[in-house]
Amino acid sequence: MNDSIQKMLAHASVRDFSDEKLSEEQVESLLLASQSGSTSHHVQAFSIIDVTDPELRQAFGEISHCGPYVEGAAKFYVFVADLYRMSTVLKAKGKDDSGLANNEALTVAMVDTAIAAQNMALASESMDLGICYIGGIRNDIAKSAELLKLPKYTVPLFGLCIGIPASRNGKKPRLPLTNQVSENSYDQAILTNVTGFDEEMRAYYASRGSNQKASDWSQQMADYMDHELRPDFTDFLKAQGFKLA
Amino acid sequence: MNDSIQKMLAHASVRDFSDEKLSEEQVESLLLASQSGSTSHHVQAFSIIDVTDPELRQAFGEISHCGPYVEGAAKFYVFVADLYRMSTVLKAKGKDDSGLANNEALTVAMVDTAIAAQNMALASESMDLGICYIGGIRNDIAKSAELLKLPKYTVPLFGLCIGIPASRNGKKPRLPLTNQVSENSYDQAILTNVTGFDEEMRAYYASRGSNQKASDWSQQMADYMDHELRPDFTDFLKAQGFKLA
Repeated sequence: MNDSIQKMLAHASVRDFSDEKLSEEQVESLLLASQSGSTSHHVQAFSIIDVTDPELRQAFGEISHCGPYVEGAAKFYVFVADLYRMSTVLKAKGKDDSGLANNEALTVAMVDTAIAAQNMALASESMDLGICYIGGIRNDIAKSAELLKLPKYTVPLFGLCIGIPASRNGKKPRLPLTNQVSENSYDQAILTNVTGFDEEMRAYYASRGSNQKASDWSQQMADYMDHELRPDFTDFLKAQGFKLA
Repeated sequence: MNDSIQKMLAHASVRDFSDEKLSEEQVESLLLASQSGSTSHHVQAFSIIDVTDPELRQAFGEISHCGPYVEGAAKFYVFVADLYRMSTVLKAKGKDDSGLANNEALTVAMVDTAIAAQNMALASESMDLGICYIGGIRNDIAKSAELLKLPKYTVPLFGLCIGIPASRNGKKPRLPLTNQVSENSYDQAILTNVTGFDEEMRAYYASRGSNQKASDWSQQMADYMDHELRPDFTDFLKAQGFKLA
């Protein structure tokens, strides 16, 4: 395995950063890397907001319940799934922009955005920086959008903290390959049999350095997803102009 | 800039593969890399279908209009945004799974899936393999799901071709950073002023090695997105159990 892959396999989110800033060259590398991933039909349907204002950082820290690292990271970028730029292009060409409202276009934008962010994440880790995705900006997504003055056809999908790690967590186990990879069809019996992984996670939770607990993956997931998460997300998408159904 | 970032910046999709297979070690590296990215709350909401059956490859080639490379790539993986595994976990714990039907859960799954795929894409390119995303499996997404026997709460998001390049395309320009990165708020005037990029793309289209044309980015985008793409996607999502509105 080459160095790049070894670094990918060693990934663990970093939630504790030093005060050190990134160099201008590092920042430029990260931004260029984020743009270099695949993009559906060249639409490049994302934008990045570089949040430098301390009051904005604090507000995003509160929304996400991730204050210490959202405020303390050298960089906090918000990745925006962005079809607004496309709507201005369509209008400038005298075309109707209503096709941008459908679920397919929204999905294209979300996938483009996630690909861009993961390029930036891996570029960061290739320079031994630490990263943490902040999906918690969707805890109050309307507020997140308002803070950044986001227009129609945009979705603040997640934040990304980047910085020099002050401390690092251990790597968290992943599902066995047999639970995530199937040949030619979705083999329900194998892909959903997580008994082995539950045992592995039970041992992991009992023995890790901090936040030890008696639980397993199924229990954690059942406690987390047994209700509708962020139910206001749908109304937000509609308010942004998306025609969901 | 380190080697990893230089390779990211050199990315261009590959659509022409040699007949060579990947080694078992390469395949294992790719799959492990795909699992090692960030995942929202550890949900790991994706599955990967390794499409090895030639008839299935042919069917996906037809659906996507990408036959030569979908059939010819050493690997063709379909990445599935997958909340079905989660529904089995919830049911096993005696919990209600209806919260999985909302747009937030679907978004979590799509982002997890794209992060996993981009890890695999970059792991491939770190080994000098070529990749191409195949969003075109959504041209007939109900058929794509049927071919793979996908259950409720799953979405075949895209395919990923991987193999040894027989030929490589040149890198396609990306928007200037000023069009994609803004500080503290969404600056509409700057983020949507694509005049300079249109000039760059006009020169690129006129001078590239193959498929030369007199066009620019705005024109290409306007011609592509002036109508609702894949309008059956919404009905498919509903049929899979998602409550969109």
